[in-house]
Amino acid sequence: AFSETADSLKQNSLGNRKWFEVISLRGYGQVRYNRLLETNEKLGCDQCDKSWGNDGGLFIRRLRLVFYGWVNERIYFYVQPDFASSSGSTLNYLQLRDAFVDLGIDKENIFRVRIGQSKVPYGFENAQSSQNRLTIDRADGTNSAFVNERDLGVFIYWTPKIVQERFETISTLKLKGSGNFGMAGFGFFNGQGANKADLNKKQHIVGRFTYPLLFGKQFIEPGIQAYTGDFTMPSDLLSNGVKTNLDKTYKDERIGATLVIYPQPIGIQAEYNIGKGPQYNKQTDSIEVRNLKGGYITLNAKANIGKDLIYPYFKYNYYDGGKKFEKDARSYLVKEFETGIEWQPNKFLELVVAYTISDRTYEDFVLRNNRQKGNLLRIQAQFNF
Amino acid sequence: AFSETADSLKQNSLGNRKWFEVISLRGYGQVRYNRLLETNEKLGCDQCDKSWGNDGGLFIRRLRLVFYGWVNERIYFYVQPDFASSSGSTLNYLQLRDAFVDLGIDKENIFRVRIGQSKVPYGFENAQSSQNRLTIDRADGTNSAFVNERDLGVFIYWTPKIVQERFETISTLKLKGSGNFGMAGFGFFNGQGANKADLNKKQHIVGRFTYPLLFGKQFIEPGIQAYTGDFTMPSDLLSNGVKTNLDKTYKDERIGATLVIYPQPIGIQAEYNIGKGPQYNKQTDSIEVRNLKGGYITLNAKANIGKDLIYPYFKYNYYDGGKKFEKDARSYLVKEFETGIEWQPNKFLELVVAYTISDRTYEDFVLRNNRQKGNLLRIQAQFNF
Amino acid sequence: AFSETADSLKQNSLGNRKWFEVISLRGYGQVRYNRLLETNEKLGCDQCDKSWGNDGGLFIRRLRLVFYGWVNERIYFYVQPDFASSSGSTLNYLQLRDAFVDLGIDKENIFRVRIGQSKVPYGFENAQSSQNRLTIDRADGTNSAFVNERDLGVFIYWTPKIVQERFETISTLKLKGSGNFGMAGFGFFNGQGANKADLNKKQHIVGRFTYPLLFGKQFIEPGIQAYTGDFTMPSDLLSNGVKTNLDKTYKDERIGATLVIYPQPIGIQAEYNIGKGPQYNKQTDSIEVRNLKGGYITLNAKANIGKDLIYPYFKYNYYDGGKKFEKDARSYLVKEFETGIEWQPNKFLELVVAYTISDRTYEDFVLRNNRQKGNLLRIQAQFNF
Repeated sequence: AFSETADSLKQNSLGNRKWFEVISLRGYGQVRYNRLLETNEKLGCDQCDKSWGNDGGLFIRRLRLVFYGWVNERIYFYVQPDFASSSGSTLNYLQLRDAFVDLGIDKENIFRVRIGQSKVPYGFENAQSSQNRLTIDRADGTNSAFVNERDLGVFIYWTPKIVQERFETISTLKLKGSGNFGMAGFGFFNGQGANKADLNKKQHIVGRFTYPLLFGKQFIEPGIQAYTGDFTMPSDLLSNGVKTNLDKTYKDERIGATLVIYPQPIGIQAEYNIGKGPQYNKQTDSIEVRNLKGGYITLNAKANIGKDLIYPYFKYNYYDGGKKFEKDARSYLVKEFETGIEWQPNKFLELVVAYTISDRTYEDFVLRNNRQKGNLLRIQAQFNF
Repeated sequence: AFSETADSLKQNSLGNRKWFEVISLRGYGQVRYNRLLETNEKLGCDQCDKSWGNDGGLFIRRLRLVFYGWVNERIYFYVQPDFASSSGSTLNYLQLRDAFVDLGIDKENIFRVRIGQSKVPYGFENAQSSQNRLTIDRADGTNSAFVNERDLGVFIYWTPKIVQERFETISTLKLKGSGNFGMAGFGFFNGQGANKADLNKKQHIVGRFTYPLLFGKQFIEPGIQAYTGDFTMPSDLLSNGVKTNLDKTYKDERIGATLVIYPQPIGIQAEYNIGKGPQYNKQTDSIEVRNLKGGYITLNAKANIGKDLIYPYFKYNYYDGGKKFEKDARSYLVKEFETGIEWQPNKFLELVVAYTISDRTYEDFVLRNNRQKGNLLRIQAQFNF
Repeated sequence: AFSETADSLKQNSLGNRKWFEVISLRGYGQVRYNRLLETNEKLGCDQCDKSWGNDGGLFIRRLRLVFYGWVNERIYFYVQPDFASSSGSTLNYLQLRDAFVDLGIDKENIFRVRIGQSKVPYGFENAQSSQNRLTIDRADGTNSAFVNERDLGVFIYWTPKIVQERFETISTLKLKGSGNFGMAGFGFFNGQGANKADLNKKQHIVGRFTYPLLFGKQFIEPGIQAYTGDFTMPSDLLSNGVKTNLDKTYKDERIGATLVIYPQPIGIQAEYNIGKGPQYNKQTDSIEVRNLKGGYITLNAKANIGKDLIYPYFKYNYYDGGKKFEKDARSYLVKEFETGIEWQPNKFLELVVAYTISDRTYEDFVLRNNRQKGNLLRIQAQFNF
């Protein structure tokens, strides 16, 4: 086997196990269409998906491959790229989402250290996988914290055995939990978002505590989370002429609370956070640190109809603040109501249909007066493999 | 297995089968060299490959990985990215080609629905895999329909059992068929091409009918196909100064016929289509809807020499029309003759050597008078794994 | 299995073996932090990693997947992409590093032909995998030969059985060899670097000879190598205003020598090369062919402490010449000392900590007087799977 040694280590380091017993692969994809019953083709939502309104059509929102596995009993790796990444005006390049290693401090992985790019443990909905989420998109109020929910850092998670088991049970019961990001989580990270170079020496820090309570058979999970750091506006996000402070660096911090009553069979999921961060101010033509606040409340239910699973929901979403990872730290005021239903005919397919009533004001140096109201029907087909 | 639940569903949804029994992987690559016996270094062919003439050298034309499998008896997925995708002046990023799911309406998959990005069923040569095609490139006349032959849409295929079996037999006999895109196929899709955002609300529609007749042992496959829709010129394809109509949107439609006499051992493959679409007009400096026509005829043969397979061929290729996915919907007049031979020493390797005599006029707002004539030797090594 | 034939060959060509017995997958990742004890935030090293100094933070330097395997006893393929590839200001797209096929001329692969993108056999440290290398980065003196060490070409390697076995032994003993790039290697290639279009018709040629001598149990490997060709400056690397010769094409050639005394337990690794190539000259504001020289010497050791492996080292690195693949063929004068230690607690993890004392002058048309001196602590965590 001469060539295996040609450019790399001689073996794949897996001992007696075959590579395919150590490394696993799975994936999922989401195709969407947002233009039925559309009342305002100027209404858009960049972070939701780029196929609202004008220029929208069928759209691949996510196409993920996940390479993962335990290389030994205390080391787990997880590499999840996404094909739905654009470069310039061309779509569908493969780019990283997650790339981390978990190192178990103890043999039961009650304490573990996560190194690499992964989700920042800030918020239940942010932590929850899009493969698993009921509503089509995350809420602006909490999802505005980090682009793609992720960053590059070092995180410590503490998950006592009882909590590990409860997270497992919530998953087994298909209650749409967030997965195991620890009962307690703490981390430091670059703070500029996934797949972006750090632009300042100061690291962000984050902490989260969540606990899945059990009342009889009913799971209820309250949580709190907070982060703080400095965010530097990258020059490719600045309009020609917008004013910034000298080092383009702004305080960026939030604190939030979560309450999840799992749908057994009726549930509530609510989160709210406040904080401050960079935001475009059209009165002064400049980016300034401003207060922000927002959150959402979802009413949902879970029903088995024969072998099919059905999840209807109502969601209200509010946000007043900036989005630091958009042009000029674009200023937002969002009030949005959505009702929808997810249908799972089997474990490989999901169909979501939702009707959204949206009132979005989003303004930057170029789009100075931009309040867009409108309704639209949203359709998503998801495939798991 | 705590971390499997960390960011995604707990399991890969495959039931008792191991992941590697459900998901398969294969691939192929093509390396080319086009500069031997070259008589005109200004002669180029963007859609063929970007390594003709000036700035050409050894070139990776395709490097594909295919992840595919049946997740159950009626659901099939197929994800095929290509490493030979450039971004700016840098080559070899991984980008999607195919990403679709086939849903069988019946258990024998006589009717199936395909959702996602895939080849538009317009033309035999377009449908046929490049891994399987005899000639080095597709013909301008029919391949000018869609960039990379693909788009994002929903397609319905109807393939009666007898036709499924004939497609199988053609493949088993290594006659270089097009694979199963249905006896009848119908679909709607964005219409702006693979990996491009839709730019208008109107969907393209396409229909195709093909039938592999059997005379004794001789397969003969006639077919017809047509599509219609609106194509919007994307702004990054417009030269500064070129005139367009107000919404940059143009009628885009074609109808074509196919005749394939499979090489048993001598064959003919011919296609011709007519239609209209956006095309640069140098008289008016503008992009206009103009008529187009073109096609090709290939004479080929299949010979077994010992264990080796040999396929010699002659091909004539003609096109008069625009290429909507190139700068200013570049205007083309192509007359090209090619003779070549493919040698398969085993199933992992293929070598094609061809001599091309080309007369290509291709003009846009900047390249206003550009007729290039020339000859070149083309070499391609292909590897299958 | 209708859809397998839909877009590609019917089968994966692997005969009776399952796909996962033919294709293997492995990978590794490197996360770095370079900003502790940093004395000069203006000191950078583009080719080392882009996270030195200003704008640096935690950084994914490499995240590689390797798809590889023997499709039969004489055909081996190797496809290694990297996720740590940027496009514009966005990081972590997947891009090719290696993509080649080895064809054995004889059944023992003593002679083999490599076709595709792969490492140019120029220098021991260049050939050695980064997964395997002791020091955090390669030395400027020899690594300035080719960007990412690779190019697209055809290479012939001759490795007698005895030399194959010695390369194997060096690998088994974890002595950090370079792998098998032949006892003798010869090749021709585009010469513009990995993932770049060729810009001139002339091919580069390279030759290398290396021999792992055995004195008792001590391996000593001397080697020599040389290449020559023409390099054309790509226009996206030229500052507005810099002068070049008419066709932007420059002589590019080097000759070098290598001596490796493997760490059993104390070792020395040294390389030096001289040559000429394009280089920015600030006296004339132009890119000219100039002489270059440089190399490095490393003192290292290997120690087993229980089950752990420890490799301490000292390295001195010198380069005086241009880097043709950087802006304006940037001019360099580098004098750098580094001491560090690698710790391997098990075969899945490696931690390197190094202290670097650097004096780097690097100048182009914009950065005209730029000598940066400084020290920094460098940390790298590596994961193998």
